[in-house]
Amino acid sequence: MINVGIIGATGYAGAELVRLLLSHPAVKITGLSSVSFEGKRMSEIYPSLKNICDLPLTAMDEVIAASDAVFASLPHGLSEEIAEKCVARGAVFIDLGADFRLYDEAEYEKWYGLGYKLPQLHERAVYALPELFRERIINADIIGNPGCYPTSIALGLAPALKNGLAAAEGIIIDAKSGVTGAGRGLTQNTHFPDANENFAAYKAGCHRHTPEIEQTLSTLAGQKLRVTFVPHLLPVSRGIESTIYCKLTTGTALEEIHKIYEKFYAGERFVRVMPLGEYAAIRNVRASNYCDISLHADERTGTLIVCSVIDNMVKGAAGQAIQNLNIRFGLDEAAGLLQPPVVF
Amino acid sequence: MINVGIIGATGYAGAELVRLLLSHPAVKITGLSSVSFEGKRMSEIYPSLKNICDLPLTAMDEVIAASDAVFASLPHGLSEEIAEKCVARGAVFIDLGADFRLYDEAEYEKWYGLGYKLPQLHERAVYALPELFRERIINADIIGNPGCYPTSIALGLAPALKNGLAAAEGIIIDAKSGVTGAGRGLTQNTHFPDANENFAAYKAGCHRHTPEIEQTLSTLAGQKLRVTFVPHLLPVSRGIESTIYCKLTTGTALEEIHKIYEKFYAGERFVRVMPLGEYAAIRNVRASNYCDISLHADERTGTLIVCSVIDNMVKGAAGQAIQNLNIRFGLDEAAGLLQPPVVF
Amino acid sequence: MINVGIIGATGYAGAELVRLLLSHPAVKITGLSSVSFEGKRMSEIYPSLKNICDLPLTAMDEVIAASDAVFASLPHGLSEEIAEKCVARGAVFIDLGADFRLYDEAEYEKWYGLGYKLPQLHERAVYALPELFRERIINADIIGNPGCYPTSIALGLAPALKNGLAAAEGIIIDAKSGVTGAGRGLTQNTHFPDANENFAAYKAGCHRHTPEIEQTLSTLAGQKLRVTFVPHLLPVSRGIESTIYCKLTTGTALEEIHKIYEKFYAGERFVRVMPLGEYAAIRNVRASNYCDISLHADERTGTLIVCSVIDNMVKGAAGQAIQNLNIRFGLDEAAGLLQPPVVF
Amino acid sequence: MINVGIIGATGYAGAELVRLLLSHPAVKITGLSSVSFEGKRMSEIYPSLKNICDLPLTAMDEVIAASDAVFASLPHGLSEEIAEKCVARGAVFIDLGADFRLYDEAEYEKWYGLGYKLPQLHERAVYALPELFRERIINADIIGNPGCYPTSIALGLAPALKNGLAAAEGIIIDAKSGVTGAGRGLTQNTHFPDANENFAAYKAGCHRHTPEIEQTLSTLAGQKLRVTFVPHLLPVSRGIESTIYCKLTTGTALEEIHKIYEKFYAGERFVRVMPLGEYAAIRNVRASNYCDISLHADERTGTLIVCSVIDNMVKGAAGQAIQNLNIRFGLDEAAGLLQPPVVF
Repeated sequence: MINVGIIGATGYAGAELVRLLLSHPAVKITGLSSVSFEGKRMSEIYPSLKNICDLPLTAMDEVIAASDAVFASLPHGLSEEIAEKCVARGAVFIDLGADFRLYDEAEYEKWYGLGYKLPQLHERAVYALPELFRERIINADIIGNPGCYPTSIALGLAPALKNGLAAAEGIIIDAKSGVTGAGRGLTQNTHFPDANENFAAYKAGCHRHTPEIEQTLSTLAGQKLRVTFVPHLLPVSRGIESTIYCKLTTGTALEEIHKIYEKFYAGERFVRVMPLGEYAAIRNVRASNYCDISLHADERTGTLIVCSVIDNMVKGAAGQAIQNLNIRFGLDEAAGLLQPPVVF
Repeated sequence: MINVGIIGATGYAGAELVRLLLSHPAVKITGLSSVSFEGKRMSEIYPSLKNICDLPLTAMDEVIAASDAVFASLPHGLSEEIAEKCVARGAVFIDLGADFRLYDEAEYEKWYGLGYKLPQLHERAVYALPELFRERIINADIIGNPGCYPTSIALGLAPALKNGLAAAEGIIIDAKSGVTGAGRGLTQNTHFPDANENFAAYKAGCHRHTPEIEQTLSTLAGQKLRVTFVPHLLPVSRGIESTIYCKLTTGTALEEIHKIYEKFYAGERFVRVMPLGEYAAIRNVRASNYCDISLHADERTGTLIVCSVIDNMVKGAAGQAIQNLNIRFGLDEAAGLLQPPVVF
Repeated sequence: MINVGIIGATGYAGAELVRLLLSHPAVKITGLSSVSFEGKRMSEIYPSLKNICDLPLTAMDEVIAASDAVFASLPHGLSEEIAEKCVARGAVFIDLGADFRLYDEAEYEKWYGLGYKLPQLHERAVYALPELFRERIINADIIGNPGCYPTSIALGLAPALKNGLAAAEGIIIDAKSGVTGAGRGLTQNTHFPDANENFAAYKAGCHRHTPEIEQTLSTLAGQKLRVTFVPHLLPVSRGIESTIYCKLTTGTALEEIHKIYEKFYAGERFVRVMPLGEYAAIRNVRASNYCDISLHADERTGTLIVCSVIDNMVKGAAGQAIQNLNIRFGLDEAAGLLQPPVVF
Repeated sequence: MINVGIIGATGYAGAELVRLLLSHPAVKITGLSSVSFEGKRMSEIYPSLKNICDLPLTAMDEVIAASDAVFASLPHGLSEEIAEKCVARGAVFIDLGADFRLYDEAEYEKWYGLGYKLPQLHERAVYALPELFRERIINADIIGNPGCYPTSIALGLAPALKNGLAAAEGIIIDAKSGVTGAGRGLTQNTHFPDANENFAAYKAGCHRHTPEIEQTLSTLAGQKLRVTFVPHLLPVSRGIESTIYCKLTTGTALEEIHKIYEKFYAGERFVRVMPLGEYAAIRNVRASNYCDISLHADERTGTLIVCSVIDNMVKGAAGQAIQNLNIRFGLDEAAGLLQPPVVF
């Protein structure tokens, strides 16, 4: 059994890690840490876990000391020091936050307003989107787990960009996320009567996931590119849908593009290319690690339209982190992640 | 008092007309017609109207005979004959359906699969989006009430296109509609457990509102243009949000664009340009005739982003139809439409 | 025009008063006060009111000084001093809070944990449920506007208790309220992902509305009675449904009871007794001042089941307060309250 | 591996069986049958199951022929003939419908309007609520899986009635169910805009689960009893909450009752008695086989209030059916049912 600890266990991503890891055949949760609730039990904060996970919430260092792998889900700027401790102890560090996602410190500084405290650590870190960068993860000490929006977008565009089917320039991404994406912390916008029956964009053109999206898409396209990215808050608990618009560069028919996508993801356990004519819908991936992708074309305007959906808490956070754990520890990549979606 | 009748009174748009007209100071509902429920009372189908509107549901011809103005909300292909009867009787016909929205019969045939039965009637019809084509409506016999998506989009883009601030080519529209947009008829996709907590695109690049959108935007831009239009089903009852992406053609700063928008809509009662930095949200227009527009720019990619929201049942259907009635009959344009939004 | 001011204008009940009063033909809003947002404009806090109500949020005393009638919607314990100021100025005080609902100070102290600061004021106060105590309201200086749950319950039971159709003892009330009932303040339980798709009871047998319910039902029954009252949090924005169980004391058939209810409420504008066989549903009263009541019997157990629904923000708060204003100032009781429900 | 088949596989309960059985370590799904969709694949009807369960939907007899155990989820009146075929083949029949829940044919006839076609079969059938009647299930050929409401109610009251803590007479049950409880078939009441933001009772005092509830409670109380049962439709996809009111018969304090409940369910894997002061909430059992029970007392009226929650599709249908399969086949009772709740 691999001993794992979770830092930031009472946030939504932390709680989702607990939910999923409890069904993992090769993992034992050895420690949970929470600044807000230290001293309480996990099941006091989440009564859903009563009799299932009654572990105490302890200090961070205790958690690190007892773990072969440590997951952290914290606000940005807090992960480097934890990563350093883990590395020092020989524990693998899997960061669900933003601190190890960007390879270019200048980009990090520009979007997050602070630089790296421990720059040398970042040389040991990888951006860990398994379907695209699996080989990098196998030996990594520090695993930067991708953001939720970027995961849905990179998987949605990879086959098109890698194969030059779509123009690298002019990509427009209209993304929508359920409210768990905003976290467990209280805000007026996520107060039930304010969020319920509402819908609006936010951070148009200035969301911090933008450089992460561009980093991956640039790699895929083999050229530096910029995207227009507009997220929206969706009045559901879980799920991200990204509708992505790009210019068709070749005369390739949609049927052909569809075949290329199917081939690209042929061996993947968690990416499903929908039959032509169907639409990727968030209910079909709910509570699961799947990413569903549907392809559409507007031939009148020469536009490829990609719809990509994930569960923001699973493939967009905790599930993908476990997938990375599995890869890093040489387990079946799907271990603990095989539950079918909860479709209704 | 103007005597008005409603054909298709038990559909959602019909019921919304009843709800709003009951507060109209200069209108009397003289007849309601419904194929499905003829013989029953309106309040038997909508118990919300008990003691408020207990009118019987009668045959169409009875309704027309008693009315100075007739609203119809029917599937496409059914309005021409009703329009003819109204015109013959000297009653104004306001069509909430699609049959009188397109000036080009070829476009209608292409998207709806059938031609005009009474082509000469269409010469007496106008496409009645008040803020853009008010003068046409004043004397019209047949009023083609705009579709819900097209209303939000045309109002969102009019100042930019009229003033050449945005490129006519390459406009991308990502729109989201609440479930009332799909009507009162039962479908699997609008069954509660299927629609709830779900989100997906539909009819990407092939929705029938496309030619209507292009007709108006072409007029505004002064050139024939095509758009990429992708609607999505939003798990709320009411509301449309359209996020519109277009290329900035001039070096105009967002502040300047914002001023141009404010000036463009300065005299309008139902269009509100949000302060820069805020986002148009569907809750802010719920159950009202307002259209809220917010403006955003992604300077990195030279993209103007317009968010435009309406209540699909009010400004997108019944409310706008009443606004058109008011214009046609020389009433205060806002008569019966002054209730503030139901924000929570 | 009657000049009215609102203290606590940015809470949900305050905002709902603004929404409704803006359509009132005989009222002018002359002042709005908010401790949290003093100095801002109402439409900055509620963008839904942009161009509709841009009044500044000022200090309480300014509001009182400019008003013939003052509404206050504040936490308990804060209303007496405001009432005193209003009375001193000759302004009518309408309290949407709890401080003037109980005639028995001992009860207030028992449930709220503090006594009256200005006991003599309470002699000038009335408990103002119009359908039951209309005549008291006409000359009152201080109007204690009923709580939301108590309104739905008192109206649901009044005909049965007044006519001795149901036993005074053993009444059980299972009530459910939408989340606006918990107010605009942030709590974990009303955070969207926690409240959404959830349902649970709270404060079983110990909710502070209990003594108010018992006060009215005791008056109706002509004897001191106690009820079992259990509220639940419903994952909707608006609406209260109370299902009330009581023992049938006489052999009266349901049809007869139904007739008695219809007669009892025959002259009332805002209470609707549903036809036998139908069920009171919150959507049928949404955003309106109606109370719908449906009657059912379980003959096997000799139980009368009353379902009573209101919109907690309208008949349960702001709408009823305006109804009381109308009564107090000799206006049409329904002035400003005639909008039909927003059924979808 | 146990070979199992599902008849009525495309209904919600059938689809939920598939979802859960796919994670069962000792079961293989060998056949799926659907009258409506015969000839299609399961994943065509439920795209959430693409690449996970692509089995064809075949005729019923094929399914029976390939199975050691057959689940059926069908409208009442259709299960006896299937049960007969299963028994003839030596396959265990687990009925999620109503046909094998009542021991008294007269009751069945009274509530369902038809008698038994094959009365002798019913002697081989058991009412299979594991926590109460586990020993009966071990050797049963025909397993009548309990209804959703009755499961939540029987588990909520069992310790109280068995120990005489509550009066057998006068029990009132106010229950609320998510919309999946109404099934996948389309109705106006479950159309999204009609069900969303709505709440109402239905079938007050006349729901068909009443005799099943009374059968179990009478057994527990050791005397024939009747209950008042009123179900409501809750605007969520999943979950049942039953708030149950009964008279405290003894002076037993709530703390003592709580201890008795904890002891009663001490060995149970799927029943959790909440700490005093907390409330059973449907989110805490979502998508899981748990039943959470919370206990409250209104000492002023001498009333015991029990809140009992389950996921109607799991413990209320598919999960409990699998629990019964496990018992019948001598497996770990929790096999395939250990996933933690999906709390958000």
